[in-house]
Amino acid sequence: MSRYLSERHARLEAYTPGEQPKDRRYIKLNTNESPFPPSPGVQAAVSEEVGRLQLYSDPLCRDLNRKAAEVYGVGEDHILMTNGSDEILQFAFMAFGDESRPFAFPDLTYGFYSVFADLHGIPYTRVPLREDLGICVEDYDGHHGPIVIANPNAPTGRLLPPDAIDYLVRTHRDAPVIIDEAYIDFGGESAIPLVDRYDNLLVTRTFSKSFSMAGARLGFGIAQPTLIRDLDLMKYSTNPYNVNRMTMAAGVAALRDIDYYRENCRRIMKTRERVAKQLRTMGFFVTDSMANFLFVRHGQVGGEALYHALRARGILVRHFDTPAIRDFNRITVGSDDEMNALLKAITEVLDDKGYPIKENV
Amino acid sequence: MSRYLSERHARLEAYTPGEQPKDRRYIKLNTNESPFPPSPGVQAAVSEEVGRLQLYSDPLCRDLNRKAAEVYGVGEDHILMTNGSDEILQFAFMAFGDESRPFAFPDLTYGFYSVFADLHGIPYTRVPLREDLGICVEDYDGHHGPIVIANPNAPTGRLLPPDAIDYLVRTHRDAPVIIDEAYIDFGGESAIPLVDRYDNLLVTRTFSKSFSMAGARLGFGIAQPTLIRDLDLMKYSTNPYNVNRMTMAAGVAALRDIDYYRENCRRIMKTRERVAKQLRTMGFFVTDSMANFLFVRHGQVGGEALYHALRARGILVRHFDTPAIRDFNRITVGSDDEMNALLKAITEVLDDKGYPIKENV
Repeated sequence: MSRYLSERHARLEAYTPGEQPKDRRYIKLNTNESPFPPSPGVQAAVSEEVGRLQLYSDPLCRDLNRKAAEVYGVGEDHILMTNGSDEILQFAFMAFGDESRPFAFPDLTYGFYSVFADLHGIPYTRVPLREDLGICVEDYDGHHGPIVIANPNAPTGRLLPPDAIDYLVRTHRDAPVIIDEAYIDFGGESAIPLVDRYDNLLVTRTFSKSFSMAGARLGFGIAQPTLIRDLDLMKYSTNPYNVNRMTMAAGVAALRDIDYYRENCRRIMKTRERVAKQLRTMGFFVTDSMANFLFVRHGQVGGEALYHALRARGILVRHFDTPAIRDFNRITVGSDDEMNALLKAITEVLDDKGYPIKENV
Repeated sequence: MSRYLSERHARLEAYTPGEQPKDRRYIKLNTNESPFPPSPGVQAAVSEEVGRLQLYSDPLCRDLNRKAAEVYGVGEDHILMTNGSDEILQFAFMAFGDESRPFAFPDLTYGFYSVFADLHGIPYTRVPLREDLGICVEDYDGHHGPIVIANPNAPTGRLLPPDAIDYLVRTHRDAPVIIDEAYIDFGGESAIPLVDRYDNLLVTRTFSKSFSMAGARLGFGIAQPTLIRDLDLMKYSTNPYNVNRMTMAAGVAALRDIDYYRENCRRIMKTRERVAKQLRTMGFFVTDSMANFLFVRHGQVGGEALYHALRARGILVRHFDTPAIRDFNRITVGSDDEMNALLKAITEVLDDKGYPIKENV
């Protein structure tokens, strides 16, 4: 830090994204990317759009909002498109949090929530997960500021049913409740139908996972127009052209090709269930993940040791230093081939470490 | 605003971008876009990159930093790439400003500076321009917080020479001095060579104007690594993947094709000088703009009236409500054909309003 940095950031700890090493070719199961490329329609739409790059993108994102409104069954004025869902989440922290409106979120969840709060000087409460790593919505009773819940939660993959979300939104009408549905397309039921009923609900989404567009940076929020206008104020006070032309064209095309992506999600879910079952047979504890990743712990081999052993074998998985989950690894569900390579490598690692697998997996 | 919006934003006024109407086809001379499309290399690079969109972009922007370092003659660790230069400017406000570090900038300049300050609760001083609409750097003597200067300034187009920038940076070693060079490629001399000498200088750039990439959202900052690390802390606390894959590929290709863009800049400068001369002959006051726009005032026809009259003729120019410049219009320098259409339309408007042009233009 230079001597010019504001003292308010003296203790700020930034988010640590999953590593993107370039030293060799890895099987990347560490950042929850899709193993499937974008649909052919995306390729065509982007190529056409490049010829217009000299012109600013539409700050109102009209074409994209129209298509998303049609797909998600809401009004166009219920949507705000952003540069990844990180941006809509940050807008929510900026718009709705302050000294007198502290946030609450689970103690184990997406690491960016606390970073946003710290950055903008917003106090927050971390609500502990239950022993089964699940979220209990009653634990938020009595909190009077905004709440943000990832559903399914990361890195556990555990899903809350719609009636739990309904409870949370209904019992906190004095503040916005933000449901981060980055991973909802892998078997969860969305809270979007509740938006009509509650003016304090904001549902956030991303094209990074189920739409194979992590590299395009597109996310959005769905809420009643009153909340959307608050978030829009943040957008127009930071970066009105936040979504570029190519990403916008890619988003419209992806929504048009939604059947392709739904089929990919089904394939990922099928692979997830198969691999979860196999890992359990191999002696792992595996949470009931409804996301495109598995959250696993081997009783004897530590999370860090497994991470390093797999990395040496050309496979990247995620390990978190957080004490409560340091025995765990988060493993993205890749293609069947990638997951077979993973299972083979894990078998070797367990054998090396002196915990050979007894059953035939 | 909803009842959920934090009170700290109660009086926040967002930035107003230039209009992007879709009701008809306009000659767009209102948002300083380039009349030239991106180079063929950009098209090819983006099309290739789309096939990898399922993977996150490189948060370190290594390929792009390497190419920019080569073009601008600085180390790779002297560069931070952002989602448009609006983002690097916002990072600078966030990193370097607070209650005890007020910003200073001209009273007439890029409208976003005050919005960033207001959004983040940073006090600021607006330093009046001189009567000739120029910036006098001595007017900043005695200010002890960060300073941001657009050079050339917007919307006046007036340019400060390198020794004036040197004076500003040298006499304010207790705070960062940010030189926003969005329009420097249209005839100005950059302050980048001063970065080696001063650890408090940040030069910001955009690909939106001279690189025909307004719709791709790419900007960057150049400074010594100590300042870059502060700004990087803001990036990693907001949006580590802020620059998407397609924009990154487009940026690398554009820098490779830099001769194409330099030639376009020369053409725009030539057109600018021709049109400035013609407008002066037609009775306009025209500032000595070194940007890709002209800032003009007709003695009799008001800026708002001219804006509306040109709009009715299918030509968009910019008009600002700010009292000090409400008689002015900011007109982007487009292609020769577009500017000829503009001159013809202005001739008609003046004739309509009863101020016919005497000389043959």
